[in-house]
Amino acid sequence: VASGREAGNGVGIQDPVVGVDLGGTKILARLVDPQTGRAVGRIKANTPSGPAAVLEAIVDVVNELEGSDGASTVGVGVPGLVRPGGVVDRCPNIAGWDSPVSVKAELSSRLGKSVVVSNDVNCGAVAEHRVGAAKGIANFLAVFVGTGVGGGLVLNNELVEGGRGMAGEIGHVTVSPGGRLCNCGGKGHLEAYAGRAGIDAEARRRVEAGASPLLVELAGDGKIKSRHIERGLKDRDSLTSELLAEAADALAQGLGNVACLLDLEHIVIGGGVVDKLGQGFVDQINDSDSFGGVGSEMVKIILAHRIDDAGVVGAAILAADDGH
Amino acid sequence: VASGREAGNGVGIQDPVVGVDLGGTKILARLVDPQTGRAVGRIKANTPSGPAAVLEAIVDVVNELEGSDGASTVGVGVPGLVRPGGVVDRCPNIAGWDSPVSVKAELSSRLGKSVVVSNDVNCGAVAEHRVGAAKGIANFLAVFVGTGVGGGLVLNNELVEGGRGMAGEIGHVTVSPGGRLCNCGGKGHLEAYAGRAGIDAEARRRVEAGASPLLVELAGDGKIKSRHIERGLKDRDSLTSELLAEAADALAQGLGNVACLLDLEHIVIGGGVVDKLGQGFVDQINDSDSFGGVGSEMVKIILAHRIDDAGVVGAAILAADDGH
Repeated sequence: VASGREAGNGVGIQDPVVGVDLGGTKILARLVDPQTGRAVGRIKANTPSGPAAVLEAIVDVVNELEGSDGASTVGVGVPGLVRPGGVVDRCPNIAGWDSPVSVKAELSSRLGKSVVVSNDVNCGAVAEHRVGAAKGIANFLAVFVGTGVGGGLVLNNELVEGGRGMAGEIGHVTVSPGGRLCNCGGKGHLEAYAGRAGIDAEARRRVEAGASPLLVELAGDGKIKSRHIERGLKDRDSLTSELLAEAADALAQGLGNVACLLDLEHIVIGGGVVDKLGQGFVDQINDSDSFGGVGSEMVKIILAHRIDDAGVVGAAILAADDGH
Repeated sequence: VASGREAGNGVGIQDPVVGVDLGGTKILARLVDPQTGRAVGRIKANTPSGPAAVLEAIVDVVNELEGSDGASTVGVGVPGLVRPGGVVDRCPNIAGWDSPVSVKAELSSRLGKSVVVSNDVNCGAVAEHRVGAAKGIANFLAVFVGTGVGGGLVLNNELVEGGRGMAGEIGHVTVSPGGRLCNCGGKGHLEAYAGRAGIDAEARRRVEAGASPLLVELAGDGKIKSRHIERGLKDRDSLTSELLAEAADALAQGLGNVACLLDLEHIVIGGGVVDKLGQGFVDQINDSDSFGGVGSEMVKIILAHRIDDAGVVGAAILAADDGH
């Protein structure tokens, strides 16, 4: 059977797993070797509206993927809350997905394969663990700073998912009680200071109140992007520097506290903002006076690897793990 | 052999384990049924100075304990940092214990029994898990508020110890960057607001600056105790109310954040201060505007059971677990 599979998919992966990354704008499927993280083949589709159309699109991309017939397992990463049992409660970034859907049950019946559904941030953390910056590290938090701030926690080489599938939510940890309003409605959450959406909203408020307009001008008609932040810093724009210092302070407090609570020696940090700003931003976090817990010397903050299609790879690895 | 043991210890416990609680002032040993937490026999000694004398005293109490000859395993809870392998780095509350000692190796060789050494707060958390308020709960944090604030974390029914034995240190999580000085030298840690030592120090500062002196007067020549805090609250003393509100706010922020990060549905809270103030204090934490993370409705804070000799019981349970 194993050699048949190899012949069938033609790519020399033994026991391949299909990895699917469901994003807000597109769906991506690849054939993955869960041992090495190597991915081959690549089928993309636009993400339609509503869970029914999304499930259909996932079935289509998996069936179109060359070699998927030789894979008995499919891992799907989704941008939403995954309850134990593969029920996806809501996906805020997918239009019309606002009530629970049994993604695991639906897909496994339609695909005739075993299906494992995971949160996309957790997939990213697992990819870092197996084939990225946290290879060989048994205990770490992976933090991804993009539009929002997400986190995945690995303890004793196992992903911590929590009883309700919500563990790792470092973005909604409070770093400043009563502080900036978060997208979730909470106040003073880390995400409101370090996420791009929080930086964007605060920049516009401050420019309105008379602060240096460069960052907002760079964004033009759109939202502030990581490259605008990078540009603002290079041009020594005062508002950009201020907002990034506040982001670094908020991350320093939040990450330091988690390291203290869980006795973590390593935190992996990545995501669009960090990818753009690099080690300089990590140094700023480490040097912050707001470092939480017992200090920055107890924990090493390391840059995430920029793994190609990390979500696909992580979803496939989680699915392979689940079958063993 | 089992019936021989039963006869030998005369108390009807099958496979008994010796539990030892090493405290700053006394050492306590009992014979424990790790299945039920039932403890029999009771030998006490004063805690001497220096690790050599402490180890000798532990050997003595274990040997004096009736039925200990029928136990092949000893669990020892210590008030200090326990490294993996049973090396105790330092015990701040025991005079002369300021460098690492191989407690596990030393005691097992002298007692001829298998010895498991654990941090005393973790022992308390395990006791709550098996025979206390967290029975049947797979994921929780146990927080003990006394002179300081300690914590023990259980995820997936397993104690989380951390790579360096320091997990659960909620007392040294920062709740107010740049805030009150903590005993550890850090600033704004939870313990500085909620621990009795922190409340004591702050009360004296504020009385010096003109605040209501009742709480400090109640303490007389000594430190402020939990019953003085209870008295101050009953007498509607303004400083006592202020300091307790700040303690509740700090706990609300710290506990809320941990619940959010780890998706905890339960937090168990105990220790001298909480035992004295009871459910009213828990309500104050729940109602605090400073509740961290995604809000108090996501987590239930429950009062710890006041388990007799919880440290002894927890140490014995951890030792029994370790042997299986």
